[in-house]
Amino acid sequence: MISSTQNERIKEYAKLNEKKYRDETNLFIIEGIHLVEEAKKYGIIKEILTTNPNIEGTLVSVEVMKKITNQKSVVEVCAICEKLNKKEITNKVLILDNIQDPGNIGTLIRTAVSFNFNTIVMENCADIYSSKVIRATQGAIFKLNIINAKIDTFISSLDGYKIYGTSLKNGVPLKEIKKSDKLAIILGNEGNGVRDEILDMTDKNIFIEIENMESLNVGIAGGIIMYELK
Amino acid sequence: MISSTQNERIKEYAKLNEKKYRDETNLFIIEGIHLVEEAKKYGIIKEILTTNPNIEGTLVSVEVMKKITNQKSVVEVCAICEKLNKKEITNKVLILDNIQDPGNIGTLIRTAVSFNFNTIVMENCADIYSSKVIRATQGAIFKLNIINAKIDTFISSLDGYKIYGTSLKNGVPLKEIKKSDKLAIILGNEGNGVRDEILDMTDKNIFIEIENMESLNVGIAGGIIMYELK
Repeated sequence: MISSTQNERIKEYAKLNEKKYRDETNLFIIEGIHLVEEAKKYGIIKEILTTNPNIEGTLVSVEVMKKITNQKSVVEVCAICEKLNKKEITNKVLILDNIQDPGNIGTLIRTAVSFNFNTIVMENCADIYSSKVIRATQGAIFKLNIINAKIDTFISSLDGYKIYGTSLKNGVPLKEIKKSDKLAIILGNEGNGVRDEILDMTDKNIFIEIENMESLNVGIAGGIIMYELK
Repeated sequence: MISSTQNERIKEYAKLNEKKYRDETNLFIIEGIHLVEEAKKYGIIKEILTTNPNIEGTLVSVEVMKKITNQKSVVEVCAICEKLNKKEITNKVLILDNIQDPGNIGTLIRTAVSFNFNTIVMENCADIYSSKVIRATQGAIFKLNIINAKIDTFISSLDGYKIYGTSLKNGVPLKEIKKSDKLAIILGNEGNGVRDEILDMTDKNIFIEIENMESLNVGIAGGIIMYELK
């Protein structure tokens, strides 16, 4: 059993609470038995750590678990995982431009998987591998092809895809957009939307007709568009 | 200028951070100039309090403002408002059964207003008049008829409305539901959904077809249904 928070491996794992180290090592932490069981199916687990001798994995003390998970409440099990590295671009792609709220990212990913948008491209967004986002996605993250890329470069590389931005001004109502086999939808920052230079590169920009309010929450807008065009 | 946090009126206002006192007094607090300006249009403001002499209202110290708003970061202006008491049941009604997350309640209300579901009926939900929910709704709350009621009693009182529950089992796919002039949609608890005894009282129960995941976030599900049936 590892009981010292000064153990070198434990100190390395605890650093994974910071995006910088997750980026450097290509590793991330998941918490809770549900996510660990799910991750097993994808063969991405490097090490399971647990405070419960009945769970398969490296036994650690409560203090060590708290240090790794950076939580006040103790989780019984966590795992160090390797980031997935799929290559295939699926027919339905969701592109996120500068979305900052981890809750929005988590909800969008859960919705994307539900509607088979299984490639997520992100530029300048809240980190998808933070434990908060991973909890919010309820395991959806393991099913995805996740790409961090410049959106303009990525869009230019797509072949045979309809590319739809979202915009409050000069948009085409969602009801007028036809489904297509291969499509990419771009959602933008909570306050500012998709950048103009990206909107200029799309086939069309979508608008959801609403009344009374200026805009929908980005997670809701994304959910409605993916439902309609899936 | 009121500078003492022991001022009797200030002490009364600070209590409004608790649901119990909001229920007793029919008052609630809003924060920030945007919401205050919006609330003015509806004539519901009892008193504006501000730390800025250039804003119309009762001048208070930073300490007093912190006490009233229960926040570490100081807002420049807040207002004590009376709960709205509209009576008309609009043609589109959103019914929430035991929804506990303030973020979900806030997002659902913003979406409801956007799609003209201007009556919200709630039983056993997170309090809509908490400052967190009010911030999340971005002023949508002022446009609504908000009713706290037993859902079974409320449904029984509706005349000429189609009543749709939401259910993961035995539901009718959303695409098969026809629009109607008068309708009420019922959304349920994040973990358990709408109670069975309520589902038994509806005309139909709606199901959104998804893949890979067990369910959508309740805010997303509600957004998609309201968009489709508005």
